[in-house]
Amino acid sequence: MFESAKLKHHVSPVTFKREEKKLREALLDAQIDLLEQRRFPVLILIAGVEGAGKGETVNLLNEWMDPRHIHTHAFWQPSDEESERPPNWRFWRALPPKGQIGVFFGAWHTMPIVQRVMGKLDEGEFSSAVADIRRLEKMLYDEGVLLIKYWFHLSKGQQKKRLHALEKDPRTRWRVTDVEWDYFKLYDRFIKVCDPFLRETSTGEAPWIVVPGADPRYRALTVGRHLLATLRRRLDDTSDSARPAKKKTLPLPAPRDDVNVLSKLELDQKMTRAEYKKELEKWQGKLNFLARDPRMKQLSVVAVFEGNDSAGKGGAIRRLTQALDARFYDTVSVAAPTEEERAQPYLWRFWRNLPRHGNLTIFDRSWYGRVLVERIEGFCSEADWMRAYGEINDFEDAMTRHGTVVVKFWLAISKDEQYRRFKEREKVAFKRFKITKEDWRNRKRWHDYETAVCDMVDRTSTAKAPWTLVEANNKLHARIKVLQTLCSALEERLEQVSKKRK
Amino acid sequence: MFESAKLKHHVSPVTFKREEKKLREALLDAQIDLLEQRRFPVLILIAGVEGAGKGETVNLLNEWMDPRHIHTHAFWQPSDEESERPPNWRFWRALPPKGQIGVFFGAWHTMPIVQRVMGKLDEGEFSSAVADIRRLEKMLYDEGVLLIKYWFHLSKGQQKKRLHALEKDPRTRWRVTDVEWDYFKLYDRFIKVCDPFLRETSTGEAPWIVVPGADPRYRALTVGRHLLATLRRRLDDTSDSARPAKKKTLPLPAPRDDVNVLSKLELDQKMTRAEYKKELEKWQGKLNFLARDPRMKQLSVVAVFEGNDSAGKGGAIRRLTQALDARFYDTVSVAAPTEEERAQPYLWRFWRNLPRHGNLTIFDRSWYGRVLVERIEGFCSEADWMRAYGEINDFEDAMTRHGTVVVKFWLAISKDEQYRRFKEREKVAFKRFKITKEDWRNRKRWHDYETAVCDMVDRTSTAKAPWTLVEANNKLHARIKVLQTLCSALEERLEQVSKKRK
Repeated sequence: MFESAKLKHHVSPVTFKREEKKLREALLDAQIDLLEQRRFPVLILIAGVEGAGKGETVNLLNEWMDPRHIHTHAFWQPSDEESERPPNWRFWRALPPKGQIGVFFGAWHTMPIVQRVMGKLDEGEFSSAVADIRRLEKMLYDEGVLLIKYWFHLSKGQQKKRLHALEKDPRTRWRVTDVEWDYFKLYDRFIKVCDPFLRETSTGEAPWIVVPGADPRYRALTVGRHLLATLRRRLDDTSDSARPAKKKTLPLPAPRDDVNVLSKLELDQKMTRAEYKKELEKWQGKLNFLARDPRMKQLSVVAVFEGNDSAGKGGAIRRLTQALDARFYDTVSVAAPTEEERAQPYLWRFWRNLPRHGNLTIFDRSWYGRVLVERIEGFCSEADWMRAYGEINDFEDAMTRHGTVVVKFWLAISKDEQYRRFKEREKVAFKRFKITKEDWRNRKRWHDYETAVCDMVDRTSTAKAPWTLVEANNKLHARIKVLQTLCSALEERLEQVSKKRK
Repeated sequence: MFESAKLKHHVSPVTFKREEKKLREALLDAQIDLLEQRRFPVLILIAGVEGAGKGETVNLLNEWMDPRHIHTHAFWQPSDEESERPPNWRFWRALPPKGQIGVFFGAWHTMPIVQRVMGKLDEGEFSSAVADIRRLEKMLYDEGVLLIKYWFHLSKGQQKKRLHALEKDPRTRWRVTDVEWDYFKLYDRFIKVCDPFLRETSTGEAPWIVVPGADPRYRALTVGRHLLATLRRRLDDTSDSARPAKKKTLPLPAPRDDVNVLSKLELDQKMTRAEYKKELEKWQGKLNFLARDPRMKQLSVVAVFEGNDSAGKGGAIRRLTQALDARFYDTVSVAAPTEEERAQPYLWRFWRNLPRHGNLTIFDRSWYGRVLVERIEGFCSEADWMRAYGEINDFEDAMTRHGTVVVKFWLAISKDEQYRRFKEREKVAFKRFKITKEDWRNRKRWHDYETAVCDMVDRTSTAKAPWTLVEANNKLHARIKVLQTLCSALEERLEQVSKKRK
């Protein structure tokens, strides 16, 4: 990747001055179009070799364009709030909304590279990190983010020269410490890791742009012109085809009979009031006990509730929260996204709500809306929801790898039972909020939902974040099953924590 | 405050069961109305004596109502992100939006009380903390927050009995540690602090409700009924008079002549290009040097830019950011609030953007919009902007007391100069974004703005966060003055830091 970058490049001051003026006006113009269109966000990743002009270039971009709409984030040590969430949480919270430009110094690529150089990741782990990055960037691309990645490069000789030059100048001396020289000693090892890394994370959608860093004017013009061309191409193409997600997908097989994970459920489970009372006390007691376990302070829990309309999600959630101290849980009720949420990739609103350690977050409906209601109502394209299965698996994988306990419930009732409940609810005054025209409308799509739910379960039930299908014609049974499932998931996780300690 | 609470109260299980059923339905009903109206948020503060049933009551409220729209926050040790902002930042970020219920355990009242009991605050400091709380709560009230404050009480004898009972029960034994008994020993001292505290922070708008805590059924019904009545009164009164802010205010004096802080400015300051070049290099160098001072890691900086349209805010900001590393500043461009911001008190959107230590945030327009454009265009009532002066002073006081450097610039140009710039900008292509119909419309209100700016300067120029009026007919002069002012504010603050260390 670095062959061209090692060559001696040079731009004369006269050329630079002339070019810069034009470039500046054009960039500013593009930035205004970006702001006015508000169609997509721009995310610029800045990476590369020490001393190759990363900071200088970003400062220059801020000078050329309107700094009021460029948001630069440098990711150093994570804060405690960050380290209590999956590693990518800090990047999600810093994503620029549509119309804005975000600049990330040292984003998701930094840790894998540094750890591989230091020998803290073996080859397999490193490959897996690379694959994660590819998937993350693919998702951002598919969500419409204009992702531009610059790698600033210096040859070993150039870096040495640069560090000496910085050291000599009293104004920049502070920038060169022992750390920089220690890193310099690792130059060859860094290159051995970075070269294949750049190749493997260079995709058609988001290629790395290697910028020769030795000549300040040459690198500035390289970045400036490339950025301008990239912005302009996307800004000027307002046709539908410019929406990355509108691609052709292969169809899923239509069900050939009525045998599926839902139809095989025995929806009418028996449980008497008396049994329920006993079981409820038992499992709420157990949950309360588990929640107070000191090891819970190191964990977070995410509980997802999905289900047919009126399947009893609210009731099941209430039986769960009854067993918990209100200070340690929060419920996120998922309705239409807010304006700020609409300006971001669809998973953003869920990332922002992930709990800190010691806390449980209940999602009353969730990111699965993408492959349920959004699929069925056509709120997103087929390509959008088709890719969502993988994106959701990645999202939950990030949680479980961080140590978060993830439980997911689908509360299933029969079509007849739903009719009965709708009718009943229309009668009861204080339940009025639970039945709307939309519910009746959704009901007409019963079969479509069934297909979507089966696809969802097949494609997102993973070993670490499995779906629990809850037979919910009998509410009592459903509530107990939810409690039991959560308890055993917690127990299992707490045992793992103990084992690790030994 | 605690006379009635010490009496022996009792509710029989039969009465409770009957009452609870009705109460539950009515509360749920009120909660639904709250959600549907989305007119105001409800904030419930929970305070009081250890063992008086605070946690139990909150859990019960979550049981009675829909826990999906109640968000409970307990404030323990601040996270590092919290401790790098003014103390109230953590409460602001947890405020419930309109339509939702927030429950705060241990909010802003906790620290002053505990510190006073422990002797860490003297009487004057405590009084000042009390005054701060009154102002904060008044502001929340005026912004439409329904603030309800419960103080759970036990007499000394009752508390002793309660702690013993908790200790005896194996299920609750964990709740009583040495800490609880240590606090018990301080009971009398606590009461001595809390009794006047409750009196002084009980206002007509937000009185403390003392709840006798010994009998679980009595306290539950007390809270439940009071909450219901409070909710209902506010929900049912949809008249205009229910908006707290629509009160009569006393008029400000109209200016009697043309002598004011703006008219006294010498708008045409002289500076040649050559002088500018020299000065710019000098002050940008100085700013760059100061920003890299290691002591800056412990500080944050807030720079506010206001001014006439086309006064050159953008240009001045750019000259400032040019001197800084993009990784350490961010700019907040204040336009129309987002949906999430509109569901909160107007200062919320500014609180959420306060910088962490080591960072500078530039506000391009700011909270002063309240007393400028909102006042002039009638976007808020006279009472709203009249109270805003005090609220803004409190906000900035919170910043400066935390150690944040606050600089505020008003860039002033003459009416003629503005006309010249508007015309010029309409001609230049790449400046097209800077001139809109709204700008021409605002211009017609020149005189109103002048009055509003003078009032603003008079009422919000404080010793620690003074306004700097910048004569801006000559852009070059303006930019240098901004840089100079920021530099001296930083220098002054850094000196204070050094002095503290000695």
